[in-house]
Amino acid sequence: MEVFEKLESEVRSYVRGFPVVFDRAEGHELFDVDGNRYLDFFAGAGVLNYGHNNPALKKPLLEYIERGAITHSLDMASSAKRDFLARFHEVILKPRGLDYKVQFPGPTGTNAVEAALKLARKVTGRHNIAAFTNAFHGMTLGALAVTGNAFKRQGGGIPLGWGGTATLPFDGYLGEGVDTLDYFERLLDDTSSGLDKPAAVIVEPVQAEGGVNVASAAWLGRLREITQKHGILLIADEIQIGCGRSGNFFAFEESGIEPDMVALSKSLSGYGLPFAVTLLKPELDKWAPGEHNGTFRGHNLAMVTATAALEHFWAKKDFEAEVQKKAELVRGRLESYAKKDSRLSVRGRGLMQGLVFPQDDQASEVSKEAFSRGLVIETAGATDNVVKFLMPLTTTEQALSEGLDIVEKSADAVLGR
Amino acid sequence: MEVFEKLESEVRSYVRGFPVVFDRAEGHELFDVDGNRYLDFFAGAGVLNYGHNNPALKKPLLEYIERGAITHSLDMASSAKRDFLARFHEVILKPRGLDYKVQFPGPTGTNAVEAALKLARKVTGRHNIAAFTNAFHGMTLGALAVTGNAFKRQGGGIPLGWGGTATLPFDGYLGEGVDTLDYFERLLDDTSSGLDKPAAVIVEPVQAEGGVNVASAAWLGRLREITQKHGILLIADEIQIGCGRSGNFFAFEESGIEPDMVALSKSLSGYGLPFAVTLLKPELDKWAPGEHNGTFRGHNLAMVTATAALEHFWAKKDFEAEVQKKAELVRGRLESYAKKDSRLSVRGRGLMQGLVFPQDDQASEVSKEAFSRGLVIETAGATDNVVKFLMPLTTTEQALSEGLDIVEKSADAVLGR
Amino acid sequence: MEVFEKLESEVRSYVRGFPVVFDRAEGHELFDVDGNRYLDFFAGAGVLNYGHNNPALKKPLLEYIERGAITHSLDMASSAKRDFLARFHEVILKPRGLDYKVQFPGPTGTNAVEAALKLARKVTGRHNIAAFTNAFHGMTLGALAVTGNAFKRQGGGIPLGWGGTATLPFDGYLGEGVDTLDYFERLLDDTSSGLDKPAAVIVEPVQAEGGVNVASAAWLGRLREITQKHGILLIADEIQIGCGRSGNFFAFEESGIEPDMVALSKSLSGYGLPFAVTLLKPELDKWAPGEHNGTFRGHNLAMVTATAALEHFWAKKDFEAEVQKKAELVRGRLESYAKKDSRLSVRGRGLMQGLVFPQDDQASEVSKEAFSRGLVIETAGATDNVVKFLMPLTTTEQALSEGLDIVEKSADAVLGR
Amino acid sequence: MEVFEKLESEVRSYVRGFPVVFDRAEGHELFDVDGNRYLDFFAGAGVLNYGHNNPALKKPLLEYIERGAITHSLDMASSAKRDFLARFHEVILKPRGLDYKVQFPGPTGTNAVEAALKLARKVTGRHNIAAFTNAFHGMTLGALAVTGNAFKRQGGGIPLGWGGTATLPFDGYLGEGVDTLDYFERLLDDTSSGLDKPAAVIVEPVQAEGGVNVASAAWLGRLREITQKHGILLIADEIQIGCGRSGNFFAFEESGIEPDMVALSKSLSGYGLPFAVTLLKPELDKWAPGEHNGTFRGHNLAMVTATAALEHFWAKKDFEAEVQKKAELVRGRLESYAKKDSRLSVRGRGLMQGLVFPQDDQASEVSKEAFSRGLVIETAGATDNVVKFLMPLTTTEQALSEGLDIVEKSADAVLGR
Repeated sequence: MEVFEKLESEVRSYVRGFPVVFDRAEGHELFDVDGNRYLDFFAGAGVLNYGHNNPALKKPLLEYIERGAITHSLDMASSAKRDFLARFHEVILKPRGLDYKVQFPGPTGTNAVEAALKLARKVTGRHNIAAFTNAFHGMTLGALAVTGNAFKRQGGGIPLGWGGTATLPFDGYLGEGVDTLDYFERLLDDTSSGLDKPAAVIVEPVQAEGGVNVASAAWLGRLREITQKHGILLIADEIQIGCGRSGNFFAFEESGIEPDMVALSKSLSGYGLPFAVTLLKPELDKWAPGEHNGTFRGHNLAMVTATAALEHFWAKKDFEAEVQKKAELVRGRLESYAKKDSRLSVRGRGLMQGLVFPQDDQASEVSKEAFSRGLVIETAGATDNVVKFLMPLTTTEQALSEGLDIVEKSADAVLGR
Repeated sequence: MEVFEKLESEVRSYVRGFPVVFDRAEGHELFDVDGNRYLDFFAGAGVLNYGHNNPALKKPLLEYIERGAITHSLDMASSAKRDFLARFHEVILKPRGLDYKVQFPGPTGTNAVEAALKLARKVTGRHNIAAFTNAFHGMTLGALAVTGNAFKRQGGGIPLGWGGTATLPFDGYLGEGVDTLDYFERLLDDTSSGLDKPAAVIVEPVQAEGGVNVASAAWLGRLREITQKHGILLIADEIQIGCGRSGNFFAFEESGIEPDMVALSKSLSGYGLPFAVTLLKPELDKWAPGEHNGTFRGHNLAMVTATAALEHFWAKKDFEAEVQKKAELVRGRLESYAKKDSRLSVRGRGLMQGLVFPQDDQASEVSKEAFSRGLVIETAGATDNVVKFLMPLTTTEQALSEGLDIVEKSADAVLGR
Repeated sequence: MEVFEKLESEVRSYVRGFPVVFDRAEGHELFDVDGNRYLDFFAGAGVLNYGHNNPALKKPLLEYIERGAITHSLDMASSAKRDFLARFHEVILKPRGLDYKVQFPGPTGTNAVEAALKLARKVTGRHNIAAFTNAFHGMTLGALAVTGNAFKRQGGGIPLGWGGTATLPFDGYLGEGVDTLDYFERLLDDTSSGLDKPAAVIVEPVQAEGGVNVASAAWLGRLREITQKHGILLIADEIQIGCGRSGNFFAFEESGIEPDMVALSKSLSGYGLPFAVTLLKPELDKWAPGEHNGTFRGHNLAMVTATAALEHFWAKKDFEAEVQKKAELVRGRLESYAKKDSRLSVRGRGLMQGLVFPQDDQASEVSKEAFSRGLVIETAGATDNVVKFLMPLTTTEQALSEGLDIVEKSADAVLGR
Repeated sequence: MEVFEKLESEVRSYVRGFPVVFDRAEGHELFDVDGNRYLDFFAGAGVLNYGHNNPALKKPLLEYIERGAITHSLDMASSAKRDFLARFHEVILKPRGLDYKVQFPGPTGTNAVEAALKLARKVTGRHNIAAFTNAFHGMTLGALAVTGNAFKRQGGGIPLGWGGTATLPFDGYLGEGVDTLDYFERLLDDTSSGLDKPAAVIVEPVQAEGGVNVASAAWLGRLREITQKHGILLIADEIQIGCGRSGNFFAFEESGIEPDMVALSKSLSGYGLPFAVTLLKPELDKWAPGEHNGTFRGHNLAMVTATAALEHFWAKKDFEAEVQKKAELVRGRLESYAKKDSRLSVRGRGLMQGLVFPQDDQASEVSKEAFSRGLVIETAGATDNVVKFLMPLTTTEQALSEGLDIVEKSADAVLGR
């Protein structure tokens, strides 16, 4: 570990919470250099929906590399890219009745968000972007400006509201019984409200970093209606909740809405390889050639594994049902546990679930306890009071039980039971 | 190609100039799906300094994947990351007397630049960043704000000067005999100049996209002196010129300066895999843990090939000399050719050379002619009047000759000779 | 009128609604060049609380000019300025237990607001300013950025949120029974809310231009508590409601709060002469000498009339009671009228009252009707649906009746009764 | 003086350099409360071109007030405003072949600048404003953003570049023999320069606060050509140098150019009364009614004295010649004095002249010495090394001699001669 302390920047973070040197990984398991095994309920912050090094993806990846196929191709055409585009259209978009053009921004989530924000401003000629309380969209300046976290925001070093960004209350933010969209609609209808009419609203259907906050289908539906009525674009940030974690490929499917743009990354390559796309309604595709670019748009290895994931998990019918079944199992266990202590609560959707603790930092303590028992699990929320369950979607039922047992024991220890 | 036209965003760019579907690649050669061969003098926009799929990197990459080693690890510790950190320190920093901490931002150049700009502002408490005419630093909003290209800037959709960014004339911008730093120094010395004292100056030692503009060693030296005198940080953007292309690992080495931060990406992984680091003087490493993060900081495959590239090319003595020798060969040929026509000129450093044409868009025409003759080569400059030579550093002398022959023939055709 | 149409900019506005050339004025009466008389229920947009050319102010003004006393003195000391400072302290601040330093910004309301915003940011080191829905604070860029009106905002020509400005719902904005400060407090308590902690909150105790919206004493009290708890400065914009219009010198007096800064202008000189001050808690007076300046800070004629107004109206006890009595009279008449038609409502405080019509632009029609009957009265609100009563505080009871009769007749005509 | 120290904000400035309480003033003379006489070579920072309380203006002012004419009329029509508009057109614009619409912004210079900047952005749809090194345009945020002084800029409390403002080198800034407009033209011609094409360039034909820097007629002419060629608006800030000080009504007249907009204030009322106008080429007058407003646009007393000044000084032929003659006298004396000491130099135009000292703050010492000898004179420049001669244009030759004698003695004392 000395190497990291001596040579890596102080900005390093997860390595402090899980201070071992990992070497191998398989499915829902991690192994450190000393051969110790850890169960992984973090899944690379949502990158590893199909587990580590899934053999269905590993095989075509190895074959591709071995045969000397092109690795890096900028935004030139490649056979791997052609296959990905075609299969993504066939397997994901078409069956869902979705009509999107695909933009390849830089291969990270924040790049996908930046591309969407730029295009929204360019297309509408407006500057303002409305985002929600507790939103998390990325660390580059454009995305950071629509991220809620004060600690991250101050890292920007300058005021972030420059282009005009407005914060709106997320679903549930003002307590039970208050439809937070009433306020948004009031501001829009009032020409003296001070809200510059937004180019776009950006929303995570389930806020991950912000504390596992779930937008209801009804609320998302109304948000779509309001934005449509006022000619405001709707951008869905599906970076962490997308690619199946919600129980559908896109979390917004449940609500029946069709966002104008969608940002996808994390589990898109399926193998942990950097990859991202921004999906655009065809009528919004007003980019001039090269107006937004980036070197690593042509990361063919990621396209190969992404295509393999589409074939293996999404071309068949039953994957969504499997995820939903596991989600029920996890949710059931958590609710049972929470029932024992009225100070605890559970929230989440699909295989992103949060166990909410009454005190700040208690989730961090649970995470620490769990790690000492061989489980990697992270926290969420502004005050680190939510334990975030983010296991691979492919985790076996046995492993789910094993991990949940560890969390319960860890929580017992923290709560002094 | 239909797939791309139908499904990919209009923003796609290089695919329009080189409209074939690439399938395989090896060293300085590309092959399309029909088996046609192309010589590659573009090298993935500077990503492929060691050529496509270099066997010295391919082997450890395949072994790493095969043995099930961890692919994606966020910023947790991994054996691959440990090895990269240690070897980068041993092979690159130590022998050059450079003392930097390594930050892993998101795995693209623009992420590395954003991290540097954020830290510069945070550390100094100042907001302004000075950049140079014709600079190119990236497409996310923070980096775009210090990029000169008007076409790219307008893609941002909002005014980009918000945090305060100032443009300074690059070396040579005001013609022969004018030291452009006189103006910078005058502005700094004058408390009524209107220049908010910058947190940092960001500079490309050789501007690539901006037209292959070379900063002299003397000019860089003076820039370092001025910034030091005024307590302004100096950030070197070595994304395209770094990793050996200049004839040294860092292009700034020639001038003897030590920047406060360095952004590296493109050829860092050596295999075309997304990867980037921001190097920081230890005393500037004031990041709080997690203050800047990003999912794909732990792209272990890229670390494996990066380490292999260090071992294979940089741990030995003679690689720099080899590059310099090839650079002289290329430069010599270009100068001979340019001599025949007083309207042509040559500029560049190492294996980034530009052949400057008298009229706008002539370089684009040469590029098109060359492609029809089996050579991939790109242009640079605001008016596309520079043919940019950016071949792999490993290109054989024979291939260099072959490619230069094609360029000469293509230029003859465009110039009507 | 031709002169105006030909030579003055299209930006001219009130001249379009009241298209006569005014020549003389006295108390609550205006006379045009043809000798026609108009009753004035607009009072120069709140500038003429003591009526036009009040003789108690006119006399010392004439004497001052006649004796050759200094007219313009920048921010040098003058006997007139000394007298104003001393009397303002004695007559206004001391009896109310208020401890403020007096800053003379440029002699307009927007200058007073800009000075307050600059100081708030400088003192706190924070950039964000929170303002309320329907706020109106001025037309220069700093003040415009905290003004709600979309039409005015677009006149700025650039995005106005640059320094970070946040909009909060004003008292009553979300309907009966919703304390809009709950949302503000929620945002402040949540470190991931996206609200950058404000340097200051700026509030009009009664919003004039925004539609005659009254903040309750309880709401203002809670706003003061919240801001104090979080170390946020509170700026009261008393430009239109101040100098007695509310029934007290400062409208905030009723609530018992003490803002950190107060902006005063409009009726401060009492004679229609440009004048403004920014009041600062002594501990906030961190200005360096000359850090904010302006040529017309030393407008001695305005200081002479301002001092005369203090002596004549405020040094005695009964002026506030008189205003309150008249306010009751006006309010009573309006409520009686509104009772006849359930679509009408009345709101306001002191001698700023609004008669609210059900349809957009109806107030404009009433204003037009009233002018044809010899009454100058203006509208407010984003949709011009509020007739705004803003008569001189010195208007006689008879004239009040006369004007109210005209409004009722005009409203009858518009409502078709 | 105690009143000021106790009750007025620390921001007060000139009162510190001239620490007496002024009471009366006449022409070029000031008198304090103890009857001491001071010669005035500061003229209220350029407000009093016709001296204090000029009888030709005082008489109509008194008559206007006495007869009960309207004092405050917002932007409604008044007989005084009609007369001013008509006479300004007849006496100033028409004879000079200038075609401008007149906008009445708030009655201060910074308001006139803000109106111009807003309109320039609105009309062009561009956000960037280019201003010059050492420029001074005002203290409200829009104007402050184009002001060069670092001390004033930091008073803004936030980064000021938000809308995009670019600094260009003023005439002479880069030394003899360098035409600083070469750089501007280079930036404009280069689409990768980083300069966002400006909506407007704002320029003071003579920079007053910035150190009495004179733009040559040739340089202004070329600036006009460049801006015209690129469709950039040119705004002349004539706030301090205008209304005759340069020897013409507008300082730009000498160069033969016609700016697109002109900001006038300070000496416009002629009597020290707050007043300002923004002149607009008719084709730029795209304001919507009320899009920019301000309470004190209808300051009729200022219009009365402004009209009187037009009649008395400008309707006749010989005033400009008189000013030029006095300017030569002053300039001659200063040059003779400077000749005695090679470290001194003189610069300026008309009756704005600067005596430049070799060391920082020496001008401040001279000012202090002069005040002790009965002369009020101020300094300019970023380092207070310029004594700024800004006497009333009506100063008698005898008084000019008297004042110059005092300055020479004071300078002798400071220089140790």
